[in-house]
Amino acid sequence: MKKSIITVSREFGSGGRTIGKTVAQRLGIPYYDKELVKQVALESGFDPKYIEEQGEFSPGKTHFAFSFLGRGVPGVMGGMTAADFLWTIQHNVIRDLADKGPCVIVGRCADYILRDDPRRLSVFVHAPLDERVRRAREEYGVQEPNLESFVLRQDKARASYYNYFATGKWGQSREYDLCVSSHMGIAAAVATIKAAALAVAGGTGA
Amino acid sequence: MKKSIITVSREFGSGGRTIGKTVAQRLGIPYYDKELVKQVALESGFDPKYIEEQGEFSPGKTHFAFSFLGRGVPGVMGGMTAADFLWTIQHNVIRDLADKGPCVIVGRCADYILRDDPRRLSVFVHAPLDERVRRAREEYGVQEPNLESFVLRQDKARASYYNYFATGKWGQSREYDLCVSSHMGIAAAVATIKAAALAVAGGTGA
Repeated sequence: MKKSIITVSREFGSGGRTIGKTVAQRLGIPYYDKELVKQVALESGFDPKYIEEQGEFSPGKTHFAFSFLGRGVPGVMGGMTAADFLWTIQHNVIRDLADKGPCVIVGRCADYILRDDPRRLSVFVHAPLDERVRRAREEYGVQEPNLESFVLRQDKARASYYNYFATGKWGQSREYDLCVSSHMGIAAAVATIKAAALAVAGGTGA
Repeated sequence: MKKSIITVSREFGSGGRTIGKTVAQRLGIPYYDKELVKQVALESGFDPKYIEEQGEFSPGKTHFAFSFLGRGVPGVMGGMTAADFLWTIQHNVIRDLADKGPCVIVGRCADYILRDDPRRLSVFVHAPLDERVRRAREEYGVQEPNLESFVLRQDKARASYYNYFATGKWGQSREYDLCVSSHMGIAAAVATIKAAALAVAGGTGA
């Protein structure tokens, strides 16, 4: 039975992170969110001690950052901006995580990075603005004078990041295998994504 | 247990009609497609004999077209274009079908017409262009010199119809509870939509 690499992109306040985490629990597969990916990339890419230990030209799969650094780039940043550099490292972290097997990855354009992986099931989670504002206030504890504007700014940042690095358009249904509104409820969204993952994994997919 | 009114919008050649029909079969609920809705509307709205029998001012729920005609509109068309008139009748047909109970309705902006119905689960089905072109040729038997352009023209017509009558934008993920790519396979798409409908109906929804 095939199993899926589920990538989750989401609007701010849609509950997408919780949904992704719960889907992973239900399917018994690892869960990685954007913070973890960023942390792994930063730790791996910028720790001088680790570089010293592994050697600059280590081709090891788990030492993605250094294989990248080892590809003859002149200088650590190679003329790239910090954002481009972090992108490249995170790109490799995500490919590395996917290589390990089925998992759920939230954020970081993972859907785009893994676009050629036949195991990928890409999901976008959204919700009506009023529900996202409520969630930001009540569940995330965000304290902002204009919460609606704050929520929309977070979306804008995510869209910019996506539209800069990926070729498609963030939030456009055609970019994803599955788009789910958490307006149907967190539990219903989880059940829907889980069903899709199992159906695809069960060989009913194209 | 609540049950759903599932509305299905779809890109041309995505298999959305087949998917909607199969979901209805699996859930044991009626299935209505745009042709049926159009036929019902035309038959009901323009058959003089039926009008004579029911009376112009009949307020009966099943005689939606005539209740509409009976609302003091001066003349059959009331100054509307034929498209507007047909829209209004189909609008009432769809509300009437939804009032009868759980069902699947494909096309005709049913998602927008039923936007305030809490039982509504709105679905958009799409697929990569090459798969839609193949389906148009092999399954629908479309014979056109430029099949790709033909498929895109059908989408354009559906989008225009939707964007004219509805307030949202056709195919934009935020407009729907669920968007599914049939690239995952017809069976997997059916399983996904069925799971969403059952999860929502089971009271796991918000």
